[in-house]
Amino acid sequence: MRIGIDLMGGDFFPSAPVEGVIQAQKKSAGMIKPVLIGDREIIIAELLRQGVEADAFEIIHTSQVIEMGESPTKAITAKPDCSINVGMRMVKEGKIDAFVSAGNTGAMLVSSSLVLGNIPGVARPAIAVLFPSHSGKLTLLVDIGANIDAKPEYLVQFAQLGSEFMEDVMQVNSPKIALLNVGEEKGKGTQSVKEAYLLLEKTEKISFVGNVEGRDIFSGKADVLVCDGFTGNIVLKFAESMYENLKDAFGENEPFIQKFNFENYGGVPVLGINGVVMIGHGISNGKAFSNMIFRAAEAVEKDLTGKIKKAFEA
Amino acid sequence: MRIGIDLMGGDFFPSAPVEGVIQAQKKSAGMIKPVLIGDREIIIAELLRQGVEADAFEIIHTSQVIEMGESPTKAITAKPDCSINVGMRMVKEGKIDAFVSAGNTGAMLVSSSLVLGNIPGVARPAIAVLFPSHSGKLTLLVDIGANIDAKPEYLVQFAQLGSEFMEDVMQVNSPKIALLNVGEEKGKGTQSVKEAYLLLEKTEKISFVGNVEGRDIFSGKADVLVCDGFTGNIVLKFAESMYENLKDAFGENEPFIQKFNFENYGGVPVLGINGVVMIGHGISNGKAFSNMIFRAAEAVEKDLTGKIKKAFEA
Repeated sequence: MRIGIDLMGGDFFPSAPVEGVIQAQKKSAGMIKPVLIGDREIIIAELLRQGVEADAFEIIHTSQVIEMGESPTKAITAKPDCSINVGMRMVKEGKIDAFVSAGNTGAMLVSSSLVLGNIPGVARPAIAVLFPSHSGKLTLLVDIGANIDAKPEYLVQFAQLGSEFMEDVMQVNSPKIALLNVGEEKGKGTQSVKEAYLLLEKTEKISFVGNVEGRDIFSGKADVLVCDGFTGNIVLKFAESMYENLKDAFGENEPFIQKFNFENYGGVPVLGINGVVMIGHGISNGKAFSNMIFRAAEAVEKDLTGKIKKAFEA
Repeated sequence: MRIGIDLMGGDFFPSAPVEGVIQAQKKSAGMIKPVLIGDREIIIAELLRQGVEADAFEIIHTSQVIEMGESPTKAITAKPDCSINVGMRMVKEGKIDAFVSAGNTGAMLVSSSLVLGNIPGVARPAIAVLFPSHSGKLTLLVDIGANIDAKPEYLVQFAQLGSEFMEDVMQVNSPKIALLNVGEEKGKGTQSVKEAYLLLEKTEKISFVGNVEGRDIFSGKADVLVCDGFTGNIVLKFAESMYENLKDAFGENEPFIQKFNFENYGGVPVLGINGVVMIGHGISNGKAFSNMIFRAAEAVEKDLTGKIKKAFEA
C-alpha cells in the first residue's frame, strides 16, 4: 500500500515527518510504502541527517510551499505545485492510496474539496477526532472545525460520516450516535441542534441515542458525538491544552495521562471526500506521523471511501 | 450582612446547605448572617442532626418545592411559594442582601428575571463561571448556559457584565476581554461572533484583546472569555467531568488537581439582574455552599449591582 506523506507540513518539518516514515516503514515490515512529497533537496538532507540512504524512499519533488499566515484558499489556488495539492492529485490519479499531512488544516480542506471533490450526496466534508474515554474506549467527535456554522442537515451528515468511520475503520458494531448538547432532554440546544435531533430520529441505518452533555465527551456513553465545527474546535483545543498541562504536572508516561496523548491517535480523517486523507496536528512528532500513516492504511484497507459512497447512495 | 440560602436546592439538600451555613457563620465571625429559606420542619430536623440548636438561624418557611423534571418556567409561575421565588422576593424587598441556591439553574434564571428583573439596558442576563488557570489566576467564562443562541449584541453585553464582575468583585484592574473562538485572527468564527468582534472593537470602557482559542481557557491569557451559552455550557461540563476523572486518578488533595476543584469557587453569579444572586452546582457540598455565601457577600460589599447599573447607564 502506498501512503503519501507531506514532508513540508507541521511545526517540525522535515525532521518529524521523516522520523515518522522511517518508523512506519520499519513497523509495517514492508506492507506500507511511504511516498515522500516535498522539496527533494530538503528531504534528502534530512534523510541523510537521520542516517538513511537518499534512495531509501520514493520522493515526489514539489516546487511550491504554503507559508505561515497565507490565506489557505488563495494559496491552494495560487500554488498548484505545493505538497498538499500534489498529494491530493496523486490520490485522485490512484498513484497513492492515501495522503497524510500535518500542514495547514484550512489548506488541506480546500485542496481536498477542489482536487478530490466530495462523495456524491455529501454536502460538507467534516473532520473528526478520536477522544479517549475513561474506560479506554474511543469516542469520535465530528466536526472539529471544517464547518463553523453548521445547518441541521450538515449535522445529520456528520452523524452518518462518523457512524461509517467508527463501524468500518474502528470496527465498532452499530456505533451509538449522539448530539453534543447542553442537556439530555429532547428540545434542548440551538435552533440548528433541535432541528438536527428531529431529523436524526428519522435517519435510517444509524443508532441515534439522543443528546449528551459536555461531561460525556470522556465518558464513552456514545461512539460518535456530533456538533458544529465551532464547538468541536473549541472543545478539542481545550482538551489538548489540558493534556499539555497534565503532562507538565505529572509527566507524559504517567498511565492516566498517557491515555490522553494525541500522538497515540495520529491524525484526524477528512470524512466525506473522494479519497483517504488524514490531517495531523501542527505539533505532530515522529510517533504521531507514524501512527497517522497506520491510521490512513487502516482506512484504505477497510475501504472507508467506498463504504461512505455506498451509504450515501442509499 | 444577610445572605439568603435556598435549603431545598442541590443534590444533597438539606445536609449540604446546612453544613455550608454552619461553616460560613463560623468563618465570618458574625459578619454574615445566613437566612435559611425552605421547609421549616426539614431544616430544623437537619440542624438538630448536625448538632445545632433549632433557633441558631433565622428560618423563612416555604410551602412549595420544585420537583426534579418539572419545567422551570412553569414551576416558577405555578409555585409562588417555592424557596427560589421566596428568596428572590426577599432580595427585591431588601430583606436579604443576596440569595444563593444550588437548585435548578433554569428555574433560578426565570425567577430572577421575573421577580428581580434585568438591570435597565441589559437585554439578557448571563451566568458566568471562574476557571482556574495554570498560573493560579482566575478567568471568567460568560455565558455558560443562560443564552443558547446568542446574538452579537448579547455577546457584547456579556463582555461588559464580565468586565464589571472581574473589576469590581475580583479586583482585576482593567480586565482583558476576549472572544472564545476557533482562531485568533479577526474574521474567524460564526456569523454572530464575527459581528460581535466588530462591535467589541468599538465598545468603550472595556479592554477588548481580540479572539482566543480553546487552548487559552486555562492559560490566563484573558480575564474574561465571552461565548454563547451553548459553547460555554459544553466547555464547563467537559471541564468538570475532567476534574472528576482526575480526582479519581490522583486524589483530590493532589496540589495540581486541587486548583481545579469547583468547591473552592462556590457558585456562579447571575450577571445583569437587579440583585446579587449566585447559582451553585447541583453537586455542591458544604464547602461549596460556604464559599458561595462568601462570594455573594463579596459582590454585595463591592456593590456589584450598583456598578453594573452605572456601567449600563452610560
